Amino acid sequence: MNSPEMRRAPHIGTLPAGPRGTIADVHGVTVGHCTLDEGAVQTGVTVIRPHDGDPFLDKVPAAASVINGFGKSIGLVQVEELGTLETPIALTNTFSVAAAAQAQIRAAVRANPQIGREWPTVNPLVFECNDGYLNDIQALAVTARHFDDAYAAAGPDVAGGSVGAGRGMSCFDLKGGIGNASRVVSAAGRSYTVGALVLANFGRLPMLTIDGMPLGRALAERADNAEAAALLSATPATQPEQGSIIMIVATDAPLDARQLRRLSLRAAAGLARTGSVYGHGSGDIALAFSTAYTVPHGADFVTLPPLVADERLDPLFRACADSVEQAILDALWRAASVTGRAGRRRLSLHDSVPDLAQLLKPTP
Amino acid sequence: MNSPEMRRAPHIGTLPAGPRGTIADVHGVTVGHCTLDEGAVQTGVTVIRPHDGDPFLDKVPAAASVINGFGKSIGLVQVEELGTLETPIALTNTFSVAAAAQAQIRAAVRANPQIGREWPTVNPLVFECNDGYLNDIQALAVTARHFDDAYAAAGPDVAGGSVGAGRGMSCFDLKGGIGNASRVVSAAGRSYTVGALVLANFGRLPMLTIDGMPLGRALAERADNAEAAALLSATPATQPEQGSIIMIVATDAPLDARQLRRLSLRAAAGLARTGSVYGHGSGDIALAFSTAYTVPHGADFVTLPPLVADERLDPLFRACADSVEQAILDALWRAASVTGRAGRRRLSLHDSVPDLAQLLKPTP
Amino acid sequence: MNSPEMRRAPHIGTLPAGPRGTIADVHGVTVGHCTLDEGAVQTGVTVIRPHDGDPFLDKVPAAASVINGFGKSIGLVQVEELGTLETPIALTNTFSVAAAAQAQIRAAVRANPQIGREWPTVNPLVFECNDGYLNDIQALAVTARHFDDAYAAAGPDVAGGSVGAGRGMSCFDLKGGIGNASRVVSAAGRSYTVGALVLANFGRLPMLTIDGMPLGRALAERADNAEAAALLSATPATQPEQGSIIMIVATDAPLDARQLRRLSLRAAAGLARTGSVYGHGSGDIALAFSTAYTVPHGADFVTLPPLVADERLDPLFRACADSVEQAILDALWRAASVTGRAGRRRLSLHDSVPDLAQLLKPTP
Amino acid sequence: MNSPEMRRAPHIGTLPAGPRGTIADVHGVTVGHCTLDEGAVQTGVTVIRPHDGDPFLDKVPAAASVINGFGKSIGLVQVEELGTLETPIALTNTFSVAAAAQAQIRAAVRANPQIGREWPTVNPLVFECNDGYLNDIQALAVTARHFDDAYAAAGPDVAGGSVGAGRGMSCFDLKGGIGNASRVVSAAGRSYTVGALVLANFGRLPMLTIDGMPLGRALAERADNAEAAALLSATPATQPEQGSIIMIVATDAPLDARQLRRLSLRAAAGLARTGSVYGHGSGDIALAFSTAYTVPHGADFVTLPPLVADERLDPLFRACADSVEQAILDALWRAASVTGRAGRRRLSLHDSVPDLAQLLKPTP
Repeated sequence: MNSPEMRRAPHIGTLPAGPRGTIADVHGVTVGHCTLDEGAVQTGVTVIRPHDGDPFLDKVPAAASVINGFGKSIGLVQVEELGTLETPIALTNTFSVAAAAQAQIRAAVRANPQIGREWPTVNPLVFECNDGYLNDIQALAVTARHFDDAYAAAGPDVAGGSVGAGRGMSCFDLKGGIGNASRVVSAAGRSYTVGALVLANFGRLPMLTIDGMPLGRALAERADNAEAAALLSATPATQPEQGSIIMIVATDAPLDARQLRRLSLRAAAGLARTGSVYGHGSGDIALAFSTAYTVPHGADFVTLPPLVADERLDPLFRACADSVEQAILDALWRAASVTGRAGRRRLSLHDSVPDLAQLLKPTP
Repeated sequence: MNSPEMRRAPHIGTLPAGPRGTIADVHGVTVGHCTLDEGAVQTGVTVIRPHDGDPFLDKVPAAASVINGFGKSIGLVQVEELGTLETPIALTNTFSVAAAAQAQIRAAVRANPQIGREWPTVNPLVFECNDGYLNDIQALAVTARHFDDAYAAAGPDVAGGSVGAGRGMSCFDLKGGIGNASRVVSAAGRSYTVGALVLANFGRLPMLTIDGMPLGRALAERADNAEAAALLSATPATQPEQGSIIMIVATDAPLDARQLRRLSLRAAAGLARTGSVYGHGSGDIALAFSTAYTVPHGADFVTLPPLVADERLDPLFRACADSVEQAILDALWRAASVTGRAGRRRLSLHDSVPDLAQLLKPTP
Repeated sequence: MNSPEMRRAPHIGTLPAGPRGTIADVHGVTVGHCTLDEGAVQTGVTVIRPHDGDPFLDKVPAAASVINGFGKSIGLVQVEELGTLETPIALTNTFSVAAAAQAQIRAAVRANPQIGREWPTVNPLVFECNDGYLNDIQALAVTARHFDDAYAAAGPDVAGGSVGAGRGMSCFDLKGGIGNASRVVSAAGRSYTVGALVLANFGRLPMLTIDGMPLGRALAERADNAEAAALLSATPATQPEQGSIIMIVATDAPLDARQLRRLSLRAAAGLARTGSVYGHGSGDIALAFSTAYTVPHGADFVTLPPLVADERLDPLFRACADSVEQAILDALWRAASVTGRAGRRRLSLHDSVPDLAQLLKPTP
Repeated sequence: MNSPEMRRAPHIGTLPAGPRGTIADVHGVTVGHCTLDEGAVQTGVTVIRPHDGDPFLDKVPAAASVINGFGKSIGLVQVEELGTLETPIALTNTFSVAAAAQAQIRAAVRANPQIGREWPTVNPLVFECNDGYLNDIQALAVTARHFDDAYAAAGPDVAGGSVGAGRGMSCFDLKGGIGNASRVVSAAGRSYTVGALVLANFGRLPMLTIDGMPLGRALAERADNAEAAALLSATPATQPEQGSIIMIVATDAPLDARQLRRLSLRAAAGLARTGSVYGHGSGDIALAFSTAYTVPHGADFVTLPPLVADERLDPLFRACADSVEQAILDALWRAASVTGRAGRRRLSLHDSVPDLAQLLKPTP
């Protein structure tokens, strides 16, 4: 079989993808990973830079939707109030939010020593999922250096699967992790790109739905793959989700924070199509930002480009939903199987279902 | 072909339905319709009674999620603050919210003449969709009498399709209207029922997805039914949605308002599975209430039964999502074709797709 | 004693007022009242026009803060989603919201017959307070004509006190009603005006605080005015508030909807300074709009002027708080005593406290 | 002059205080401080324990109001979703949120090693203000040990002023810090206590209002105290607030999370009375919790005591507003003058205004 990197999930919907099929199709957005892979420590940090400048000096319009707030992110209170983000976006495991936030602060202060002195403080933005099934989360292995490494590695070529913050994540009782997708649409007569990067760590197998097919139900029933059956049974079916999904949506369409909040909520539609009902224990959060303009620190006035009218947002809404659904599949498709703490192992979708291509054929 | 009332949409998911397959499977809930069917006036009122008592004296725990707020409901501000509803729930067309609210006030004052005098005022709760495609909405044909008639007609046998508030509604460019469904689940070791009633008036044909199958895309492409093709082309594909969906969710599970808000949001998952991305112009609102206890007017203290713990809510969340998806299909399945103002006509799904049963077979 | 119209409440704070001292100091804003004064019917309608054009065609950026949601307004759901208002703002009594909303719809359809047909529906915006102490609210005396009359009367000269929607309102057990104020401030190097119009119908006498002085406590204790004492005792001190206050804030500063929501919340500060703790039964809602630009209906793009940066908003926040506090005092100062249903009477502040000027002197 | 600890701010309002006049008047609540006072490092940690058990095992009903979200707290997303807190509440400086959160996680895992393994993760709750005027916030001096020390020091005798997280805080250009207050009220026929603890770090001098008296305006004008004048001028009057206030409200009244959110919002009224308009750069957050019951971890059902009806909440609302206003004054009254980084000094109110008692006399 070909390598995970070469595999492509089925294309969702009728909208075309951008050239890379990642969040980096939105011009200027870059992503870096730092992966920790040492025995019981299977975790990492992923950093998304909205532009290649300093986001504290040139803040980025942004807004979020908390679909299910079983989550321990930091930074959302201020994003909601001010409609901007002012650091890169960091993703990591639940117990490493503090380390990443501290690293964000240190990095911002290094770049702008006035922060917390002549200037106000900086608002670090860190999201998390709980990778405690595979990763020894209590080891608190992530440090500021890992954030810095992920930041330094940021570029337009975005790896996916069991990398960065996605290293230890599980999804539908399979190996989850980082997924990407993009869509190009026409709105108000112009062409815009919507890109998504997800940290996928949610769901039980029977819920898994691929492009409308209830694949998980079929898989859970057959269990013809002995290893898969054994592993799947490792998480008792009665145990509730303790997962989460973070969905970062970028666009080059000129939108303000109110509109970005609207856009971010459409991630809930893409997520639902994969089988999620936003489980109680799943921190499901979507954040959307626009690269069409920045909000300069310390200015008297903020000049916005003409904004796409709300009446013209539907194509962008569809692009958001499709990108998020596609990005979740991308995480499953690209993830490699991983063994972690206490010998626990999560099989990739491909290792669990060698005849996947066969199974997905009958889709009309 | 059998009559619409006999048709049953495919069963969604693996959870069993209640005996009626309607919101009235939640014990005590009743529904009444008043249908206006006179030429260009194709509209109506639907009333949902949460219990057979006086909801002003015995208020009902409730909460809502505004998924997309392009809507003109009345009553949500107070429901959100106080976590209760105190009138029946009324559904009607957009321009008749005022008439229904006035009727709610009159009915409450008739029952309790102290309202607005010794007692506080009453909070009428009315939701709406825009049926202006088929109905002469500018005629403002709905009056207080129609609300009273719907209220008087309330019972446990719930009609669906092109009745009551659903009379003039469109859904996926087909005939929409009232749909129902229910699911029975076990949570925290006890059996509970979740029921949904939707007023479905959203979506463009290419989005229609039935149990994961992108049926709408196929239909929009083939157009082998001449009448259907002609009618579908009546609404230009480039025109944005001006629809909406109201999703009323009832349960006998003991939940407080915070938990009911959580439950109501899962309606967004069921809605998304039918193809919606919560379009800009679609007022998508879900309201959930519990029949497990009431909040007596004027009491010093409110005694609640033991509440299902949040950690045990997942089965109810699934039941909500499945019930809403099922209820939307139910609306499509039961709706009869309707001709309205200016000779406009919406074909039912069955009239548009005579070979529907055939098409839906290959579902795995 | 001079007439109520001539009386001026003490100036609050150090910011200067605009030339009229009303919401109409914000250029283009006009206000009209229709007053019903017939025995037991003591009520009315007040209309605020944000500009002299058609707000459906040229929508106005707006946002609201629901400080306490014991209220029955209509229209806020859509204002929150889209950040605009598209009708004039109507104020009336609780049971007349429906009549005013219906009138708003009729007026919008008269002006734009495409509404609800080729175009989407219109979102009527109506706020209310409960004037049931003085007014026979159950009479449902307000009709569409009263809205139309108030609309037709709109102009830059704004009456206050016991007029329009304020006719039957009570405030601190005294006569309440319509109050106005404005402040002129410099923000980001430019001069802006903030104006407020309140419909004041909240509070019990012991809470009344005027420019920091706990006047109500003193008055409630002395009761040296026999008539006042008698009337005040008409509402038992143990009875909770059943009031409300609607606070409409206008500004010519260029702000977007997110910023207007921030601005509107500062009304809570002005309200608190008068003695309110946002009582359970008081629907306390603030809505802010900007006249600096409009959002044209049907456009592809929305062009905004340079927006005042969030970091420069503090002077506008102060102006909002001071204007709202001042407007509440203005309502008390201008209101004339009114006798209503069942012979009930609310004394004006001046009739209740003939030596008011004396009492307010010792303020440092 | 008597020592700061002996000084008492004027009593606000007419409701009686509890025996201690602190948040610890709510039975079971304890507070501990760890103060860092070494040259340029003037900061600390304050811990509030809602009960003397393990809050992860026995979660505490809680809810928050973000009055102005210029803040970097951690934990609010989950509190809002689930309506409980599951760690002590930690207060510290802005750049030490991560250290305190990490310490919270470590402490929770020490007590319950299943966390992040068999059990879900824990939600650390940390609030902050920016003490960067006096404290070298960039030094990141706070470590896990300081959290642990504050936790270990928790008891019912609560120190105030320039201690714990309050060590480096400024308020109205004077020395701010930790303040406390309580009120005892009757609601629904029973006696309840409301207590507040604030971390006060907001406001510019001219805004300072003490029990309605605009003292700050008078002080800013006279400047007869040379040192005070010099110090006050250190922060240019044109510079916006970079402060914040955290308001923690405890009560023994049985309320659910929805009601606690309502209660917490009344902190905004108390805050406004001291002169605040919730400035742009001020993170103004109130969190309320009840000690009347707990939510056991892992239970199937949650049993609540009879809840105070919403209609009976007004006395608790007043108690919240008065307690918060009083607690802010308490912070000013108890704070000792502090010298910090770069020789900067904040004078206490008493050192700035030796004739304070005189000035406050003329209040009627």
